[in-house]
Amino acid sequence: MSVTNALSIFALGGVYEIGKNMYVIQYDDDIVVIDCGSKFPDESYLGIDLIIPDITYLLENREKVRGLIITHGHEDHIGGIPYFLKQLNIPLYGTRLTLGLVAEKLKEHHLLHDSELNTIHSDSEITLGSLQISFFQTNHSIPDCLGVVFDTPEGTVVHTGDFKFDLTPVNNQSPDLYKMAAIGQKGVLVLLSESTNAERSGFTPSEIHVGEHLKEAFTKAKQRVFVSTFASNVYRLQQVIDAAYLTNRKLVLLGRSMVNVVRIASEQGYLYIPEGMLIEAEEANQLDPSQVAVLCTGSQGEPNAALARLSTSGYRHIKVRPGDTVILSATPIPGNERNVTRIVDNLFILGAKVIYGSGTGMHVSGHGSQEELKLMLTLMKPTYFIPIHGEYRMLQQHRILAESLGIETENIFIINNGDVVDFHNHEAWQERKVPAGSTLVDGLGIGDVGTVILRDRKHLSEDGILVVVVTRSKTDGKILSGPDLISRGFVFAPEFEGLLEEATRIAAQTLATLSEENVQQWNRLKQGIRESIGQYLYTNTKRRPMILPIIMEV
Amino acid sequence: MSVTNALSIFALGGVYEIGKNMYVIQYDDDIVVIDCGSKFPDESYLGIDLIIPDITYLLENREKVRGLIITHGHEDHIGGIPYFLKQLNIPLYGTRLTLGLVAEKLKEHHLLHDSELNTIHSDSEITLGSLQISFFQTNHSIPDCLGVVFDTPEGTVVHTGDFKFDLTPVNNQSPDLYKMAAIGQKGVLVLLSESTNAERSGFTPSEIHVGEHLKEAFTKAKQRVFVSTFASNVYRLQQVIDAAYLTNRKLVLLGRSMVNVVRIASEQGYLYIPEGMLIEAEEANQLDPSQVAVLCTGSQGEPNAALARLSTSGYRHIKVRPGDTVILSATPIPGNERNVTRIVDNLFILGAKVIYGSGTGMHVSGHGSQEELKLMLTLMKPTYFIPIHGEYRMLQQHRILAESLGIETENIFIINNGDVVDFHNHEAWQERKVPAGSTLVDGLGIGDVGTVILRDRKHLSEDGILVVVVTRSKTDGKILSGPDLISRGFVFAPEFEGLLEEATRIAAQTLATLSEENVQQWNRLKQGIRESIGQYLYTNTKRRPMILPIIMEV
Repeated sequence: MSVTNALSIFALGGVYEIGKNMYVIQYDDDIVVIDCGSKFPDESYLGIDLIIPDITYLLENREKVRGLIITHGHEDHIGGIPYFLKQLNIPLYGTRLTLGLVAEKLKEHHLLHDSELNTIHSDSEITLGSLQISFFQTNHSIPDCLGVVFDTPEGTVVHTGDFKFDLTPVNNQSPDLYKMAAIGQKGVLVLLSESTNAERSGFTPSEIHVGEHLKEAFTKAKQRVFVSTFASNVYRLQQVIDAAYLTNRKLVLLGRSMVNVVRIASEQGYLYIPEGMLIEAEEANQLDPSQVAVLCTGSQGEPNAALARLSTSGYRHIKVRPGDTVILSATPIPGNERNVTRIVDNLFILGAKVIYGSGTGMHVSGHGSQEELKLMLTLMKPTYFIPIHGEYRMLQQHRILAESLGIETENIFIINNGDVVDFHNHEAWQERKVPAGSTLVDGLGIGDVGTVILRDRKHLSEDGILVVVVTRSKTDGKILSGPDLISRGFVFAPEFEGLLEEATRIAAQTLATLSEENVQQWNRLKQGIRESIGQYLYTNTKRRPMILPIIMEV
Repeated sequence: MSVTNALSIFALGGVYEIGKNMYVIQYDDDIVVIDCGSKFPDESYLGIDLIIPDITYLLENREKVRGLIITHGHEDHIGGIPYFLKQLNIPLYGTRLTLGLVAEKLKEHHLLHDSELNTIHSDSEITLGSLQISFFQTNHSIPDCLGVVFDTPEGTVVHTGDFKFDLTPVNNQSPDLYKMAAIGQKGVLVLLSESTNAERSGFTPSEIHVGEHLKEAFTKAKQRVFVSTFASNVYRLQQVIDAAYLTNRKLVLLGRSMVNVVRIASEQGYLYIPEGMLIEAEEANQLDPSQVAVLCTGSQGEPNAALARLSTSGYRHIKVRPGDTVILSATPIPGNERNVTRIVDNLFILGAKVIYGSGTGMHVSGHGSQEELKLMLTLMKPTYFIPIHGEYRMLQQHRILAESLGIETENIFIINNGDVVDFHNHEAWQERKVPAGSTLVDGLGIGDVGTVILRDRKHLSEDGILVVVVTRSKTDGKILSGPDLISRGFVFAPEFEGLLEEATRIAAQTLATLSEENVQQWNRLKQGIRESIGQYLYTNTKRRPMILPIIMEV
């Protein structure tokens, strides 16, 4: 039920999941989108490169979409932008660093030239359609993050972006408590707040502590120091640079995104690197090991990133040697643990002293824990609450936190992607849905790979394929050549010597039998071959390869 | 260099990895094997069911193999036994519960009838060839565990099996400190000690604490309680039964291995279940929810196990309902985290109160932490030390612990599978290797799936396959039918409409061109098709399906 002059809020990505954040605020005929992220596929998405939000709703309402506001430059907030703009070219609004990172992506996709990028900051005020929008500074594991405030005729909507309350921030980008309090005091109709660490009690430690541990490790290290961390955590990079400077070390950057972020961040003044500190890998070998530090990507165990390559001596010009120190300045995101431990093992084998694991103090989260989430809820004091940016259990825990602060259970909406919360005359309800889901990116194809292709890839990955080719005469259906059986990914003789021969005999038998009954029905012939060979193969191997019968007619 | 009358020790599985434990003690012409486990494949082993140790060395020396001693009944110590016995049928030695679980496996593989199972206990003394073997009781997360002591002419060899030092054990199966001290006092040449928790400081908490937390949760729960845990942890099962009994609940068992272990363990007296307590799932629905408890498998997030099925309402007769309590009495082994969080989310969505995560006290490890590993080293006071049962970094940490107790670095051997440590006249060295590795089990095939098959499956899983079929005349090479292109797992129109048509045209073109040059060389023709089509497809899709050209001749 759609009410004119009503406020509608929903997610196209980012709820019931971590990743591909995309939120929509619609008032009447004005649609504003917040963020457009991507998500990395897990191993069940065979051959898929990236997952982005399904934007069918926005395409169906394209004339109403006024702009895309980007809260900060993390992949799960900007990774989908190139694919979005290809289909719907609308103005972008973001802070300087955020747009710097977005521009880099657009350049890769050859879209920068046609895009409209509008730089904003925490004091900006913009109007998109009938929506008045302002911002407030938050603090996260990347600089230049904003929360967003929508002044609508129905009331004020606040979207927090990602945040923690780091009260001793590394570059003085503090969360703006005064502005948040003012917003809350004026009255907030509905708050959308991120739920990543809603399961964690307490207060997330300040980034400043990591710097102390880094300095200690750099000082104790007798040889080279390698630090692997998220390239986007510019504060962390600053602290590594500071620790290197303190211990008279030159710094090598390894990994494309590390090089890019350092360049963009230092050009824009977010990162201060002493003159002459950065050196190339080849130069590092001329120096005493105690004068060298390396900053690299790959802290999540990504097999193609710098740390993995270092762990298998994959760089010609720089290698981890016995006595070097390697610091993993990150904790593995669920799903990445095995990749990380594999790399840690390899680094140990190379003789490195490896500092890894959650107890080392070498990493703090960029997301607020329970006390900070309660702090945000207390500052904003919303009438309605929609927890976002989290898997179901995180949204659920966030709801429990809100209830503990006195927000009524019926005023809290746990929504899945596509569930619309409508607001009118201070009432809110969630009844209707809009199209939403995942669009899979594989190579150049966006959205063509769906259930059928994935199902086939899964089948092929488990037991391979057996192709059964036969050539028959068009005139009388007589078999002229074959059946020939060719397999890939199925079995490897000699354990199964005779298996394919017997299967060939069965195929021929099946063809002969079915052809007598009915020459023309190809589907019946193919199905018959699949069943007879499939049954035989399963009985003898307990494997079910995909069976692909092909009948050529001449 | 092989010395007669010398002692040799090596692993065929279980070092540089967790899983498929298999250790070999050889004195002269007598070989005794300790354990024969299996390992579950990670996602890179496409289609593989199980990984077992490569026993080439034992097959090449089959006349010397005297017996297989099994330290305890966990899969990573017994999972490979059926496959081993199929190739080399030797006597097995194990405790009552251990052999009970092994017999269950052998029955499934139709091997029980021909196997020789010898029951031993901690006071047994056996002679295998010239090796005198005795045992000592240890404590682990399954009853009836033993350490093994070999009295050899070169000196005493001790193998700890898996252990912790739980000094308040649930069923009074205490670690036998007196016997361990006596063994150490007599003098130990070399100790093989398990390294699973070598990275963890402190002392692993006692199992008894879990029982306290279980009782508390069972008492607080107003409706049904579901507990998911390892079926083999009979102590944990006992504590769940005790908590259910305390709160007047009947108990349902879900999951085949849970039903099996409960049966075997209670038959043998390791598990005490009050009369009439066990009920079927259907009966549970007749009772008040506060009188029902369920004990199920699947605590590692295994997609086909009970917990996963419950989380998706996959059981007809029993469902998780709002207000039910679900306790995950296990912590995810690295690699399993995402499967577990997916299940937790689904249980939350069903409205359950889910108790999960490491801070809940609902699980303690069965492996000793650093202080216990030091305690074992101190009791045994070996001259030489070989850390086993761990990935590289765990073996490395265990070495550091041993060094801190005064064992000389050069007397500690970190070995990979196949590295042999030889002992003679109180000297030890590691120079030679024996064949060792992984044998992959896929359906009925043992060892046939290797690099080629896995590589093909990986290729198929990423971009699918494109079959190119052509029928030619035997006499003049003229094309009679085709080329026809059939794809699976590659692209799905309409985004790529015209792609396969153009690829067909290119295939025909390539055939025509190459045929003119050389009619007969099929490999050249096929390679030409692969290259021309592959290039075209990659340029237009950035995907590289496997291309399988098939030429039929009539």
